[in-house]
Amino acid sequence: MRKPLEGVRVLDLTQAYSGPFCTMQLADHGAEVIKIEKPGVGDQTRYWAPMRNGHSGYYSYINRNKIGLSLDLKKPEAKQVFLDLVKTADVVVENFKVGVMDKLGLGYEVLKEINPRIIYGSISGFGLEGPLAARPAYDIVAQAMSGMMSVTGFPDSPPTKLGPSMGDNFSGAYLCMGVLMALYEREKTGVGRRLDIAMLDTLFSVMENFVVEHTMEGTTPHRNGNSDPSLAPFDSFHAKDGDFVMGTGVEEMFVRLAEAMGKPELVQDPRFETNIKRCKHSDELKAIIEEWTTTKTVAELEEIIVGIKIPFGNILTIPETCKHPQIAVRNMLWDVYQPGIEDTIRIPGTPIKMHGIEDKCERPAPLIGEHNEKILSETLGYSAEKIAELKEKGAI
Amino acid sequence: MRKPLEGVRVLDLTQAYSGPFCTMQLADHGAEVIKIEKPGVGDQTRYWAPMRNGHSGYYSYINRNKIGLSLDLKKPEAKQVFLDLVKTADVVVENFKVGVMDKLGLGYEVLKEINPRIIYGSISGFGLEGPLAARPAYDIVAQAMSGMMSVTGFPDSPPTKLGPSMGDNFSGAYLCMGVLMALYEREKTGVGRRLDIAMLDTLFSVMENFVVEHTMEGTTPHRNGNSDPSLAPFDSFHAKDGDFVMGTGVEEMFVRLAEAMGKPELVQDPRFETNIKRCKHSDELKAIIEEWTTTKTVAELEEIIVGIKIPFGNILTIPETCKHPQIAVRNMLWDVYQPGIEDTIRIPGTPIKMHGIEDKCERPAPLIGEHNEKILSETLGYSAEKIAELKEKGAI
Repeated sequence: MRKPLEGVRVLDLTQAYSGPFCTMQLADHGAEVIKIEKPGVGDQTRYWAPMRNGHSGYYSYINRNKIGLSLDLKKPEAKQVFLDLVKTADVVVENFKVGVMDKLGLGYEVLKEINPRIIYGSISGFGLEGPLAARPAYDIVAQAMSGMMSVTGFPDSPPTKLGPSMGDNFSGAYLCMGVLMALYEREKTGVGRRLDIAMLDTLFSVMENFVVEHTMEGTTPHRNGNSDPSLAPFDSFHAKDGDFVMGTGVEEMFVRLAEAMGKPELVQDPRFETNIKRCKHSDELKAIIEEWTTTKTVAELEEIIVGIKIPFGNILTIPETCKHPQIAVRNMLWDVYQPGIEDTIRIPGTPIKMHGIEDKCERPAPLIGEHNEKILSETLGYSAEKIAELKEKGAI
Repeated sequence: MRKPLEGVRVLDLTQAYSGPFCTMQLADHGAEVIKIEKPGVGDQTRYWAPMRNGHSGYYSYINRNKIGLSLDLKKPEAKQVFLDLVKTADVVVENFKVGVMDKLGLGYEVLKEINPRIIYGSISGFGLEGPLAARPAYDIVAQAMSGMMSVTGFPDSPPTKLGPSMGDNFSGAYLCMGVLMALYEREKTGVGRRLDIAMLDTLFSVMENFVVEHTMEGTTPHRNGNSDPSLAPFDSFHAKDGDFVMGTGVEEMFVRLAEAMGKPELVQDPRFETNIKRCKHSDELKAIIEEWTTTKTVAELEEIIVGIKIPFGNILTIPETCKHPQIAVRNMLWDVYQPGIEDTIRIPGTPIKMHGIEDKCERPAPLIGEHNEKILSETLGYSAEKIAELKEKGAI
């Protein structure tokens, strides 16, 4: 069964999470992603928990569907292998510190000479230019400097980091979009593009209305906990046996909620008669709603609130989400037998659902250099002698 | 200057944030995005704060670079306009509740008959099938049900929502990727694809290692505040005049930090001699580090910590980020004169930086139906009489 990116070859020099997240999307949808790692060492995530049998579940998850080539890019013989591959490739992606590829002699200007069709993408903390370009960064740095932490959490709690590394994975998503745009364009123009994604830009660009609120009104957006400052009721609430979330986005929802609560008079209450007034008195409104919700279980409330067509959510733990029937129907967990771990592991599948495509993991993550022979002989036509020599010199 | 998606026509039926975030990426990079809205009413975000002069900054921000067509899709004349446009278009995207497009007679099966090259993408809360498919959802519902809230916040704080609506914008990013994959594939096959993105799947797929931790080790991941459970020190810290973040990802960073603190002996301390031990004793380690950091200002610490090449971040507010010189160099704020608001507003630019492209806003967000005449006469070749008739019937 055809996948959309069949025939696209990606040379993947990325490490850790941001770059590999990008190439995972490409690999899941049919691109041949050649994961290039240092011989005997590999990506740093090969040592990240959860580990089993000396192999990492983290690595396995985000590198499924890729094939493995080992290259020590500091050796001239390995550089030549890389340059030979560039001639055959469509895309090169890297997330080294800014300047590393140039120092290796493998910068965009060099690769473009060899293959003008090449699409070359980088992810860095702050981008390729500017006062902070040379600084190293982790996701938490981008979360802090983008303002993300300042708007996440409760008014009385400190600035709060998002659980997962969203500066990493969203940068990977943007690079993936850029690569795909450039691939499409190249069908028309025949030439590639240079792409430059920064984690700081990335998180700054997903702030929804926080930035525009400030630039238009001069305000400093602050932390609102789980509530929405512009809609009410729209928050998490206590029930008898736990918490849940619900949100009313339009007037009629509040009317139906007030009726379900047995307090239809709330709709005429001068504190609550419009959304703007409800936002102003949201603490009072929440207290009234919780007088009702704390008399019922979450399951009882789910039935009532879903019944009146108000968006409702259980606050689930990761194990609860993993076993949710909706996640099963959507095939959001893939089982894959992982060599090294020597067992079948369960990893999140792709959320890009395309009809007419078999939605499964095609191959496990590679061992370091697992596909050296295949790539060097079949793709590059190297002789057995040449491959043996590369091995001997420690280039692969 | 050419942009990569020039020549791609998108019929954009999306509302609110998730779908418009997707088509904003396409419009920013050269696609002709025709934003279709109900005559006289428009997208719900036209009424969302910040408002000025009766026009919304929120709407203006996420709909820049699009053109406006008004259509009342319940009227047969408007349906015909839409179907005529489908014949000329590459992409249709929508984020109505599941089933609405079919009820309108504009489902994928219908459009595919008219134009087999059409790429048709949907965003919904839970996807097109499964027990929850019919339920309405907001971002907060996906954040709750995906487990995201369970892993964000502090151990002693409640499950915490991410500040912005990341279930919305990341779903938009995934739909954008899917559309671009399908556009590329269509160059090879000549046929389109049906895409189906769910907010719940989306947030479940960006959990980094939380899911695999659970599936491989049976654990229930919990909230870790700003610290990283697998690296230490890696957290937010108090200084004399505020907080900051730093992270040590490799052993040598901790050695340099201990020296900078004037406590090189920490490296041999049996509690701190390896990363695993530091993670176990991270509270003790944090207390020792803060004995040092609370004697200095954030600015002093920035100089020291950046100087020893450890990733460091100021925890900035949105106004502070907006005026940061790195954001300026990266051109991450675009100025655009917005009709309706009748003023120049400042909105976040695109983080997908492509060399050789002028990085700016090409046109402000449209007024409702602003480009009706142009689209109907130039694109569809309708006569002035026909357009007048459509107006008279309230179809446009």
